[in-house]
Amino acid sequence: MKVVGLITEYNPFHNGHKYHIEKAKEMTGADYVVVVMSGNFVQRGTPAVTDKYTRTKMALLSGADLVIELPVRFATASAELFATGAIKLLSSLGIVDSICFGTECGDISILTEIAELLCNEPDSYKALLNECLKKGDSFPVARAKALSELLNDPRFITVLQSPNNILGIEYIKAILKTNSHLRPFTITRKVSGYHSSSLEDTNASDEISSASAIRGYVASHNQMDLLHKHIPKESFECLMQAYQQTFPIDANDFSLVLYYKLLFENLTSLCDYLDINSDLAGRILNTRANYQSYCDFADQLKSKNITHTRATRMLCHILLNIKNDNTISQDPDYLRILGIKKSSTHLLRTASKLSKLPLITKVADARNAISADGMTMLMEDINAAHLYNEIIFEKYHYKMKDEYRVGILLL
Amino acid sequence: MKVVGLITEYNPFHNGHKYHIEKAKEMTGADYVVVVMSGNFVQRGTPAVTDKYTRTKMALLSGADLVIELPVRFATASAELFATGAIKLLSSLGIVDSICFGTECGDISILTEIAELLCNEPDSYKALLNECLKKGDSFPVARAKALSELLNDPRFITVLQSPNNILGIEYIKAILKTNSHLRPFTITRKVSGYHSSSLEDTNASDEISSASAIRGYVASHNQMDLLHKHIPKESFECLMQAYQQTFPIDANDFSLVLYYKLLFENLTSLCDYLDINSDLAGRILNTRANYQSYCDFADQLKSKNITHTRATRMLCHILLNIKNDNTISQDPDYLRILGIKKSSTHLLRTASKLSKLPLITKVADARNAISADGMTMLMEDINAAHLYNEIIFEKYHYKMKDEYRVGILLL
Repeated sequence: MKVVGLITEYNPFHNGHKYHIEKAKEMTGADYVVVVMSGNFVQRGTPAVTDKYTRTKMALLSGADLVIELPVRFATASAELFATGAIKLLSSLGIVDSICFGTECGDISILTEIAELLCNEPDSYKALLNECLKKGDSFPVARAKALSELLNDPRFITVLQSPNNILGIEYIKAILKTNSHLRPFTITRKVSGYHSSSLEDTNASDEISSASAIRGYVASHNQMDLLHKHIPKESFECLMQAYQQTFPIDANDFSLVLYYKLLFENLTSLCDYLDINSDLAGRILNTRANYQSYCDFADQLKSKNITHTRATRMLCHILLNIKNDNTISQDPDYLRILGIKKSSTHLLRTASKLSKLPLITKVADARNAISADGMTMLMEDINAAHLYNEIIFEKYHYKMKDEYRVGILLL
Repeated sequence: MKVVGLITEYNPFHNGHKYHIEKAKEMTGADYVVVVMSGNFVQRGTPAVTDKYTRTKMALLSGADLVIELPVRFATASAELFATGAIKLLSSLGIVDSICFGTECGDISILTEIAELLCNEPDSYKALLNECLKKGDSFPVARAKALSELLNDPRFITVLQSPNNILGIEYIKAILKTNSHLRPFTITRKVSGYHSSSLEDTNASDEISSASAIRGYVASHNQMDLLHKHIPKESFECLMQAYQQTFPIDANDFSLVLYYKLLFENLTSLCDYLDINSDLAGRILNTRANYQSYCDFADQLKSKNITHTRATRMLCHILLNIKNDNTISQDPDYLRILGIKKSSTHLLRTASKLSKLPLITKVADARNAISADGMTMLMEDINAAHLYNEIIFEKYHYKMKDEYRVGILLL
């Protein structure tokens, strides 16, 4: 039995994701696909456009066999921590042999070469990186400049300019650093621009658009009409069912609660949150009086050395009370199953024998299965979901099942 | 110059309040009326139906000369702390000679007799009180039973059955305990039932209704039509201006933020809030999964020994982050001026010479005038106002001036 692991957000699921699943199986010769997916909040520091159960359903309907939740503190973390969390989960499961991710370059050897260099962090690299950071470059820009100068190879420079290459490098770094047995594969992404916000920007012939473009279309057109071309049929039906009932949700639906949370923070309390230092905390306090909305506030916090995504992610940590807590380990402590295909339940039986981490299929039973620190981490996921559900209720008056009552999705 | 002090909520201002002002001047021979008023949150643990500036304006238009804000931790406290805070403010101002409050009995001597007894707390009273509390009576019920049994006088028993008599007793207790120079007066309240919720319940001939009845009418009828008979003309015009722009506001407008706040609390953190013990904290945690709204949740927390008001007040402390903080003194640390009549500004000049506490006319300057502990207390007021303003914005899309920019109201 061969199993390939995918690291995903499916925000929302679209044709490109289906292509990814199919291609990954083909490339790795896998019989099954295990997906690690962000829950209700994603790496850009915003809520997912639709809840994790709808996204799980879409994944299972389009080729995934098993969906596992990436704990929210990894899901909303920097690329490095995001990748580490996801790789550790896939490695721990005990049944996954390989991972496969999409990159712009599609060349595993060049990505591995860079990852090895970053794992070793030679002094010359560190010096170049610090120089760029001192000049006020943001971390991603500084890293790309330092590497480009160090490697002085036009191939490397091109590779480092694309976001999915960089994420791919992080996956390989995580594999190297954790001595994971997972073998990395990459496929060339078919989408031109990851952040293209208009469906018209995408190549109509292959009908693969970015998730950003799909979200942008729903938000600005207030309809779903064009989307059936860009989303697999079964997934499209899921989204249509959820439309105007629980979906779409965006960051500004959380504007009031974020404002409320910020109201009672001070310099010391803000520095307790993951990814926030005193500079950033000061910026938040100085800017707070001009608060308009979640997205606008992230815009206001943006600066030469703080990217918009970094600002949003930081706000997400405040919103979800995710702290830089020493009592929480840097490793995921459990494997929370969101859903599985009926025909693949033997995957779960095998994993329950081989897994290095407890498998959580029922949140209500988790306390008996995992450590106190693990429970703290799981409570972050539960709270994030309950908050997300309450926002759905505010917006659509639809009551989601709470995390203790919802079971795993069996399709 | 004779000045009478009134302790008020004006939630909202009505004919009974105007009668109170006139009668208080007549009874005490005062030339001026100084009002201590709760800010945006009131003693029953809910937001005021309309913001503090609108309520200040109504008071000034109908006979008050100077309006001072009762800090929110006193405004939303138990009757005892509420009364103590208000009496201390009026005493500290240095220009107030007397206070005058409405009671059902209208007899200052009998109220004073009971207040003296409660100040001394004889052992026989304590024993009776504890006996009742052990049986599971709420504190107000236990106190009334203990006093009735101790005093064994039908007059006392009648007096202790009415909420305004009990509040009046607290005012006199506060005067006695703080050695205040204020002389207490009482007038007989004309309203039959404080909590009557229908305007039709009130005596139409004198057109005095309770504030509850007025709030109930606005909430259930979604109009203002009948109210002009129950509210002085100038106040009615204020309310009409605010209607559907910033008013009405009710507790359930805060349901989402309260839910959000409760989400991240635990047994230890809940016990930090004013008025919450571990029993109550446990009840909150056990009930949290059934949260529907602010008011419904307070209903669910109610029990034989927790009154609905107590539950609401406790939730208000959680909502506003009002903690049982040792660094905050039990005394108000400043006199925040909300508004004054142009013709009475000499009151402020005299007070600025005689006051024992700093007078705050501009929040932005407060940091220079008051202690660090005082600032902590003032920040609670500012945060409460900013939250209230944000809820107005959510509900009516009307942007209130923030507390640093709004000046005192000069009419």
